[in-house]
Amino acid sequence: MSTDKGVIYGLGLGPGDPDLMSVKADRILRKSSHVAYFRKKRRKGHARTIVDTLLAENVVEYAMEYPVTTEIALSDPAYNVALSEFYEGCAARIKTFSDQGISVTVLCEGDPFFYGSFMHIYTRVKDSHPVCVVPAITGMSAAWTQTGHPITWGDDVLTVLTGTLPEEVLIQKMRQSDALVVMKIGQHLGKVKRALKSSGLYERAWIVRHAAMTNSEVQKLNEVDDDSTPYFSIIIVHGQGRRP
Amino acid sequence: MSTDKGVIYGLGLGPGDPDLMSVKADRILRKSSHVAYFRKKRRKGHARTIVDTLLAENVVEYAMEYPVTTEIALSDPAYNVALSEFYEGCAARIKTFSDQGISVTVLCEGDPFFYGSFMHIYTRVKDSHPVCVVPAITGMSAAWTQTGHPITWGDDVLTVLTGTLPEEVLIQKMRQSDALVVMKIGQHLGKVKRALKSSGLYERAWIVRHAAMTNSEVQKLNEVDDDSTPYFSIIIVHGQGRRP
Repeated sequence: MSTDKGVIYGLGLGPGDPDLMSVKADRILRKSSHVAYFRKKRRKGHARTIVDTLLAENVVEYAMEYPVTTEIALSDPAYNVALSEFYEGCAARIKTFSDQGISVTVLCEGDPFFYGSFMHIYTRVKDSHPVCVVPAITGMSAAWTQTGHPITWGDDVLTVLTGTLPEEVLIQKMRQSDALVVMKIGQHLGKVKRALKSSGLYERAWIVRHAAMTNSEVQKLNEVDDDSTPYFSIIIVHGQGRRP
Repeated sequence: MSTDKGVIYGLGLGPGDPDLMSVKADRILRKSSHVAYFRKKRRKGHARTIVDTLLAENVVEYAMEYPVTTEIALSDPAYNVALSEFYEGCAARIKTFSDQGISVTVLCEGDPFFYGSFMHIYTRVKDSHPVCVVPAITGMSAAWTQTGHPITWGDDVLTVLTGTLPEEVLIQKMRQSDALVVMKIGQHLGKVKRALKSSGLYERAWIVRHAAMTNSEVQKLNEVDDDSTPYFSIIIVHGQGRRP
């Protein structure tokens, strides 16, 4: 691997509050000449918004716009094809920067290796280009902290589920959990609520919207009437394990 | 609640590298006049070691020494009694500082609300004294980052287990996992290995010792012959979910 290539940073930004970025991520970001980030079409991009006050002057920005988000069903093979081509294109562009000796910082909400889009770039560049991944505070850590209750005690088992799973899978996994986190909820809130009711966890569940952001909201889930919620919503059920 | 009371900070330090502390934690720590931390008897204390270069001059230190660690079995009621009295004493001392208008920063390895000892102080002070909990990068995030492979893809289910669980529980939970993290391993490594073999995950498992510390080690678990491992060891089995 040529040492002249620029480093591709997978920079975990944490849950949303720039104050919760790591000292390392903060330093790398302020020195970055080139930043790349994912966003939906016609949006500024959430990752980009987090770093608004931290970017160097004259930074070069590369916005990677998802070709689809919810327009095609996840189960449709066309979804995978569209996304795969998209990630190939992003990776190629980032490799070109690196080949020119330019380091590129890819902004990642939360922790890059925990359900992050950066992973799809990472697998396409890691064997040929220098990569540095910086872990970060997850959205779920910010969410359980905001509820004011610890998530796991003693030997509690923690299960992390995504709201995209089928209802019967959710129910089965929820029944086997001590502590529970549900991510990627959005349009699936109604299904997730039904699963929590079936598994007996509904009354103990909390929902945190926009954890660690200026517009964050924390509620008991049974106080929420809606059947959908912003993408940045996390459901928390606290463990009840051993506590001397 | 009197506004004259000092704030009790539950300060997440992250996995061990001071560079991975949050900007917020770094700032609070450098300004702290009083710090408290847990440690084993006759040890410096891991949390205390992490912050060696960051403490203010003339900082007042309160080392909270565990009365027992592994001398009494977890299942022995005497264990709970000893720990409960210990945490009561620590909480009382910290409350006294707060009552005098002195803020106290409790140093927490990892994330304070994720299997952290601070939780036992927290429950004893939160209703009477002002508390501020600062989330942090978990040891498991540092561990999976160091393996160089993402932990969860698409709708992978992540299960977090502790090595203290009975072998049959470990096996049952492991069989139901896509991605897996095992914490609190120490003397339980032999049992955890057997459970991983029974559940078919052994060949995919990694072990990270002292993640994000200067002496960190990353290995495939099947390359490790030992039946015990340092307390700061984490086993990782990566998810294999959807990846366009």
